[in-house]
Amino acid sequence: MPPPSEPDFSADPYTWEGLTGWKSYRTLRPFRGIYWDIRRRLPYYWSDWRDGLNYRTMAGCVRIFFINLLPALAFELDMMRNTNGYFGINEALLSSALAAFVFSLFSCQPLTVVGITGLISLFNYTIFAITEQQGIADLYPQFLAWCSIWAAITHWIAAICNWSDYMRYITDFSSNSFGTYVGIIYMVKGFQEILSTYYVADEGSPRAAYLGSVIALCYFFSVWALERIGSTILFTPRIRKLISDFAYPIATIFWTGFSHIPGHIKQADLPRVPHTRAFYPSVPRPGGVWLVDFWNLPVKWVFVALPIGILITLLFYYDHNISSITAQAKQFPLRKPAGFHWDFFLLGITCFVGGVMGIPLPNGLVPQAPVHTDSVTEYVELHARSREQDLKDGGEQGEGDWIQHNRKKIEATKVHEQRVSHFLMCLAFLGLMTGPLLDVLHTMPRALFAGVFWIVGFTGLSGMNIVQNWIYILTETRFVDPSDLRTTLKKRRIAYYTMFQIAGVAFSLGLSFTRASIGFPVVMIALIPLRWVVLPRIFTEHELLVLDAPTAEAEVVLASIGGRPTLPEVRMAEEKRRQKGESGETGEGISTKSGSEETKAEGMRSRDGFRDGEEREVEKESADEDARRGVQATLRTGHA
Amino acid sequence: MPPPSEPDFSADPYTWEGLTGWKSYRTLRPFRGIYWDIRRRLPYYWSDWRDGLNYRTMAGCVRIFFINLLPALAFELDMMRNTNGYFGINEALLSSALAAFVFSLFSCQPLTVVGITGLISLFNYTIFAITEQQGIADLYPQFLAWCSIWAAITHWIAAICNWSDYMRYITDFSSNSFGTYVGIIYMVKGFQEILSTYYVADEGSPRAAYLGSVIALCYFFSVWALERIGSTILFTPRIRKLISDFAYPIATIFWTGFSHIPGHIKQADLPRVPHTRAFYPSVPRPGGVWLVDFWNLPVKWVFVALPIGILITLLFYYDHNISSITAQAKQFPLRKPAGFHWDFFLLGITCFVGGVMGIPLPNGLVPQAPVHTDSVTEYVELHARSREQDLKDGGEQGEGDWIQHNRKKIEATKVHEQRVSHFLMCLAFLGLMTGPLLDVLHTMPRALFAGVFWIVGFTGLSGMNIVQNWIYILTETRFVDPSDLRTTLKKRRIAYYTMFQIAGVAFSLGLSFTRASIGFPVVMIALIPLRWVVLPRIFTEHELLVLDAPTAEAEVVLASIGGRPTLPEVRMAEEKRRQKGESGETGEGISTKSGSEETKAEGMRSRDGFRDGEEREVEKESADEDARRGVQATLRTGHA
Repeated sequence: MPPPSEPDFSADPYTWEGLTGWKSYRTLRPFRGIYWDIRRRLPYYWSDWRDGLNYRTMAGCVRIFFINLLPALAFELDMMRNTNGYFGINEALLSSALAAFVFSLFSCQPLTVVGITGLISLFNYTIFAITEQQGIADLYPQFLAWCSIWAAITHWIAAICNWSDYMRYITDFSSNSFGTYVGIIYMVKGFQEILSTYYVADEGSPRAAYLGSVIALCYFFSVWALERIGSTILFTPRIRKLISDFAYPIATIFWTGFSHIPGHIKQADLPRVPHTRAFYPSVPRPGGVWLVDFWNLPVKWVFVALPIGILITLLFYYDHNISSITAQAKQFPLRKPAGFHWDFFLLGITCFVGGVMGIPLPNGLVPQAPVHTDSVTEYVELHARSREQDLKDGGEQGEGDWIQHNRKKIEATKVHEQRVSHFLMCLAFLGLMTGPLLDVLHTMPRALFAGVFWIVGFTGLSGMNIVQNWIYILTETRFVDPSDLRTTLKKRRIAYYTMFQIAGVAFSLGLSFTRASIGFPVVMIALIPLRWVVLPRIFTEHELLVLDAPTAEAEVVLASIGGRPTLPEVRMAEEKRRQKGESGETGEGISTKSGSEETKAEGMRSRDGFRDGEEREVEKESADEDARRGVQATLRTGHA
Repeated sequence: MPPPSEPDFSADPYTWEGLTGWKSYRTLRPFRGIYWDIRRRLPYYWSDWRDGLNYRTMAGCVRIFFINLLPALAFELDMMRNTNGYFGINEALLSSALAAFVFSLFSCQPLTVVGITGLISLFNYTIFAITEQQGIADLYPQFLAWCSIWAAITHWIAAICNWSDYMRYITDFSSNSFGTYVGIIYMVKGFQEILSTYYVADEGSPRAAYLGSVIALCYFFSVWALERIGSTILFTPRIRKLISDFAYPIATIFWTGFSHIPGHIKQADLPRVPHTRAFYPSVPRPGGVWLVDFWNLPVKWVFVALPIGILITLLFYYDHNISSITAQAKQFPLRKPAGFHWDFFLLGITCFVGGVMGIPLPNGLVPQAPVHTDSVTEYVELHARSREQDLKDGGEQGEGDWIQHNRKKIEATKVHEQRVSHFLMCLAFLGLMTGPLLDVLHTMPRALFAGVFWIVGFTGLSGMNIVQNWIYILTETRFVDPSDLRTTLKKRRIAYYTMFQIAGVAFSLGLSFTRASIGFPVVMIALIPLRWVVLPRIFTEHELLVLDAPTAEAEVVLASIGGRPTLPEVRMAEEKRRQKGESGETGEGISTKSGSEETKAEGMRSRDGFRDGEEREVEKESADEDARRGVQATLRTGHA
């Protein structure tokens, strides 16, 4: 079945619009989403392999591999410290390899990078703390396996019952709150990583700790500076792209090398990534090589594991699907369809396998998600010229001289939507599990991972709408470009809007540092009804149109989750207008609907207008460039 | 004698144009420059005090005081290490106080900050090494005093004989080479300062050294970030100006405080600024409290001191006058006249006093010079609006939509040309010499000074034309604004031009790390004839017009040094044109002269056009902003 040449996903057969009776209930029609996901994507399968054979995919693969590997190792070190060494380097590598294997070969959307996140690390050591508290620390592997099995089962249920559709209701309000939360967790982990080196009961440790701080700081600034070069006009497009693609490998190799300079630095005896036996679990298992003897758990504890399994599913539902959506954000010109139901079903399989093998459960990586797509996207740098004329304050007529400027304008021309880069990552992870390459990993100083946490967290955070809106609030209004739609709002209202997000983030963060930490997904999920029920009563339609938008926007994405929903504020405004108008009350039932859709669509169009206009247009606004990376921010200062 | 309301310094009576016979020889008419300097400036004396009573002067005073004090202390620590403790904190403070006292009260141009430079530190410890090598280390104070006395005498001779006039011949070619050399010396000193802490024979030193490195790095980035805020559109103009004015004090206080946090940091036992007895020399003197018994030096050594004294004069001639010129650079709208001859005479006096008191000789601070003027300049931030239209590549007609932008445009409206800030600095230095404030200084970790060196050196370097030209060379040409005149040149030629500068800098640097280091002023001075004799034969008139310009440009400055000289390349081009034309060979002697002046003036005007146009116009090009600070660069990417 060859793929259609010009696919139109706006009229996808998978929809719940216009259905009535039992047919309109998602849960009553199992497998419908999965069926259409596979049917929609399958025609593209072979092209997914063919499209990966080019230079950009290879370069992008190196970049995303490092951005996947380094935080994974960093979280693994964190887990190792907090689970008494149960989780080690091999577990991290195997888990990442498993995820890359399953998702590169079988997923609907192979661009979604799946791996080890900070949140699963949080779960794993919180569960460890619970088992210790309950006096069943020796049953930790079995208990964790059961949590994972329950998680797998609930994943499958969710996927089969088409519940991924509810991702339609996630707007930037909640997804950016979540992204902010994750970014802050990363930053905090960086500091924890550094601080932990100060409190090791070792003679030379303060010395090593300070040297580690120097390396972490320098690593952070190196990656930051190297990535920034890509957005300048230095060198040629090819060279600056190369430098920013390889920012992580360059900095990692340089600072690892630096940490081995003989003399004072070598003598400081930095803590490094620990050595482990190739291909074996960090802690020898009784049952077999990797299999956890999960059947040796008292039934009582099997059922205690159930709510925790559900919490994991809640987390993954949110985390994985958001990372998948941001990997397919609208700024990338994607042509191949998404498949949320099937991918979530697959995630259940990796949960099950990961659980019974006693490795950390992989899921979608939030800050890294858009980086993968970005790194396999071909950009063209256009030479745009503009004429500029100074106007006196308030004047409409040109009064200054015409000045001609040359500008760089970036356009994304094509995304290599393929499975090759993801599959190569799988091979690379397996390769790293061999003895010689484990030795290479051992040369890396642990402090470097603090730098990794900082740069990944920082890059992610700076694109979040909370940060962007606060930068806007702190900016002097007279210098803001008039095409920024936020200028139509009062700053006080924007601050008020972000306060709801900040409250959510603060509450989740507070929770994360307590024993109840694994409850934070509930808080995050609670932001969705807050957005749909409470916010439309506080903010006007216009305010929400400017400040918030559904996170899933592109048709290729929406096709898999049942199309675009009508936002409540639009419906409410429409209702009000209709009540005011008082005209033609018969037969309006249907036309209201479509009228509301029109208003909505128009609103979206005007939003899109000022988004597309500025998309990747760089005129030395390099300060803003960082802000654009990472998860796509709702609002940017742009040109209409 | 009240100051003229609209002074015109373009027709100053102090000129050597049109003179013939013995009257045209500067050396034969002693005191002429000094006389006119005083006569020109004296009418402004009282206004110099009145004009200092305002908020901007006070805020600017804090800023320049820290930028003067911190490197002075840093160089003093450097000298202390290399002169076996002969020079200490008190010497640095007294020297800075002496300079501030003399120059604030008596100088023609009180905006020129005079203090302790890295080069005098280089001189002082090289001389120490020489005396040690000659086995007269115990005669070091006396020997140094004689070097200073000879320097004072040659200063006076130079000032009396009107030799400061030759500053007219200094172009950006040589002054920026010198600035680059100084900037690199600063950066290197920063690393030396850090490295020195690693090799102290102390148990805890590696630990302290690494902590010191962390503090130095953080200090560097803090000051950099705080100063940058001034060029953004965050907050209000008043707040962002406040933050960037106080960047040094804020960072200094914060990181000094940080270094005292109890626990690991306090235990690291960082080396700090040493304690000294208030008001007394660091090493007790036999003759009196401060006076060096310079009369106790064998006559032989008195004469050995003579060539060294001349080298000091050469250095100060170049260093002090350049810093004076850059403090009066054209971007500052100055109205009061300069006085190079008288100021150089004064510098002779501080040399003499400093010499017999055994303190480091103060002179003009190159990287800090423009900062003083900048910090007492009132800037207005205009709300400019511009309409912009995209043009297709190569198209002349507008094709895109009109987009309106709001921009920030900075204009320097007024410089508070006054003596108050300089005089307050004198009081502050004297205050610091008291016991309680010396204790405050003692709390500062020495490592912080490495950060000071880096930020001062970095800020200075980034404005130099070598750096700017290399950034231009590495930039992709199609994105450069067409109004940048360098687009009319081949990049190869620009690189070739900078090669001469780089060779001069490299040679001086190489020299600086040998025993012959104090010979480097000769190399720097040699760049001037290179520019006037060799370069015009290699580069065309147009190339030199774009790439190089006399460093002294403003009429208020040129009045004191005998007006603007005709550049050789202009004369040569004029001659060529005349030979080609072959018309009217009689009576052309004078008209050629004025014709050449006209070409020159026109050239300058077109240069000024594209300079003034962009002066301090900021539209989020914050990356470029740093480059603009420090000594004014010859060429900038600007708008015509």
